[in-house]
Amino acid sequence: MPKPVPTQQLIDGLLRGDRLALARAISRVEDNAEDAAGIVQAVFAHTGKAHLIGITGAPGTGKSTLVSALVESYRASGVTVGVLAVDPTSPFSGGALLGDRVRMTGHSGDAGVFIRSMATRRGAGGLAQASAEAMLLLDAAGFDRVLMETVGAGQAEIEIASVADTVVVVEAPGLGDEVQAIKAGLLEIADIFAVNKADRKGAARTVAALEMMLETGGAAAQTIMHHGQRMETGAASSETDAGEGWSTPVLETVAVSGGGVAQLRDALERHRAWLNESGGRAAREGRRLDHMLQTLVQAEVLARLERALTPALRGELVELMQRRQIDPYSAAAEVIRKLSR
Amino acid sequence: MPKPVPTQQLIDGLLRGDRLALARAISRVEDNAEDAAGIVQAVFAHTGKAHLIGITGAPGTGKSTLVSALVESYRASGVTVGVLAVDPTSPFSGGALLGDRVRMTGHSGDAGVFIRSMATRRGAGGLAQASAEAMLLLDAAGFDRVLMETVGAGQAEIEIASVADTVVVVEAPGLGDEVQAIKAGLLEIADIFAVNKADRKGAARTVAALEMMLETGGAAAQTIMHHGQRMETGAASSETDAGEGWSTPVLETVAVSGGGVAQLRDALERHRAWLNESGGRAAREGRRLDHMLQTLVQAEVLARLERALTPALRGELVELMQRRQIDPYSAAAEVIRKLSR
Repeated sequence: MPKPVPTQQLIDGLLRGDRLALARAISRVEDNAEDAAGIVQAVFAHTGKAHLIGITGAPGTGKSTLVSALVESYRASGVTVGVLAVDPTSPFSGGALLGDRVRMTGHSGDAGVFIRSMATRRGAGGLAQASAEAMLLLDAAGFDRVLMETVGAGQAEIEIASVADTVVVVEAPGLGDEVQAIKAGLLEIADIFAVNKADRKGAARTVAALEMMLETGGAAAQTIMHHGQRMETGAASSETDAGEGWSTPVLETVAVSGGGVAQLRDALERHRAWLNESGGRAAREGRRLDHMLQTLVQAEVLARLERALTPALRGELVELMQRRQIDPYSAAAEVIRKLSR
Repeated sequence: MPKPVPTQQLIDGLLRGDRLALARAISRVEDNAEDAAGIVQAVFAHTGKAHLIGITGAPGTGKSTLVSALVESYRASGVTVGVLAVDPTSPFSGGALLGDRVRMTGHSGDAGVFIRSMATRRGAGGLAQASAEAMLLLDAAGFDRVLMETVGAGQAEIEIASVADTVVVVEAPGLGDEVQAIKAGLLEIADIFAVNKADRKGAARTVAALEMMLETGGAAAQTIMHHGQRMETGAASSETDAGEGWSTPVLETVAVSGGGVAQLRDALERHRAWLNESGGRAAREGRRLDHMLQTLVQAEVLARLERALTPALRGELVELMQRRQIDPYSAAAEVIRKLSR
């Protein structure tokens, strides 16, 4: 086995924008390598410049194609972009996917684009943490925009809200996603809705349903979508909490032909400007760092607990409990005492 | 407000089999009252005698009616029964439900039966812990059999395996539950399958499908059920891990008329005898107490963490991170230091 590249060399390289160093640093974070924490610690002071964008949507919405088109649009105006494609459903590492993505976007020769896939080697919670850290590395490496793309799968699309400055939720006509959006709480996290494949039948209805959901806060539109047709509702308009002064746009895109992509990029830029002016950016970063802090502390505490509550100790206490010589609460107190020592 | 009954009085009453004391003690555990742990500690030495039976199944299987019929069958032979009906989907406490259940079973005047509903006031994890503790209280109160009934809803039917000596999974014809059983891992936790509403069309097919699943370990039957008809499979029989010497029976019951209920009770008694002879009972109790120990320790550790990581401290550390004067890992280490002090 070749000797691993020293941590400091990776850090220096990453901060210079060296792609190989960046890729290796992300791998160390992904693998939760021994120096993963040290890398994040060292580059943290250089973060906070990039606009962090989360893009989520159900499979079949053409989300990946939209991300590629968006990257192209950014590059056309000279803006550099780092992309993290996170798949919480796949246990495979980024290797193979990475190649596909680079080919797909046609940006393999462009130093202003860096694309990386991440999968769930460390479990769902670990992946969320690793992804948040990888975002910091891309930010520190100097990319102007950092995009994180996740498959809308259960918890993941909610997690994205705690990682990004701006969240784009991608929908498509005829997937029944409007209802899904409400169920999963996507309505609350979306800063921008993109109805992709907008050249398909039903696009107008999807747009209308989303707009009505945004107006009424979800309740009315839920009825509409369940019945599969638009109808008048008497529900009072209960303003959604999209943040003061930002009205969540519903955009139509056709990613394969690039249709509407410039408008999506414009909306992202407008949201970025709004975040900066309103103080929303600092607020979101604060929530993000608070979330990261709590995750790190909890992980450390539980790791310590696992080290203290060895199988031998567990076996010993279970035996005492089975003989009714100690009760579960006293046994737990015994473990806590050992932990505090 | 009337003065609450002193803890010691509840404990003494419960151990004498006083119903009101038992009901109050369960409420304290359910509410996670200050003396909840003390009650469990005090009665623990008196537990380990009852046969703990878990009964789970999807809504619509007639699970509750089956439990009532089973209680009646036990009572006819002089065996006392405590019943805990746990609904992880309902946020409401047992009060109202309790009345319904007592009326329904027609045992309101029988001192040999105690029926109690529990709901999810403490959240899913809290409910599981409270239910496990309530089982201990019913055991200590001297009931010969303690039944825990849960709605088959996600995680709950798996949790039941860590609470009971014997698990009965209730199915019904035509619900597509055979496939659901495999998905949720019910096949692994079932000691007895009861196909209720066995007078309905499709019962024989449900029984056959379950028997084939048990024979093949699930894989073959999954194909069968997906195609909706029985067919020969070449799959090798890969014995399920139902425990050595116990072959999971698939019984037909018609709870409303009492059909097959005596056979279900017999199967439960046979499983109980088998557990005692094979040492399986001690093994399951050990797993159960190990699980309870880990849950208690983890809850205590996380409670301590929450006390240490105050909003003020979080706010302070987030501000330092936002100024890039401290990184997330160093901030986390700071919290851990405070926690250990």
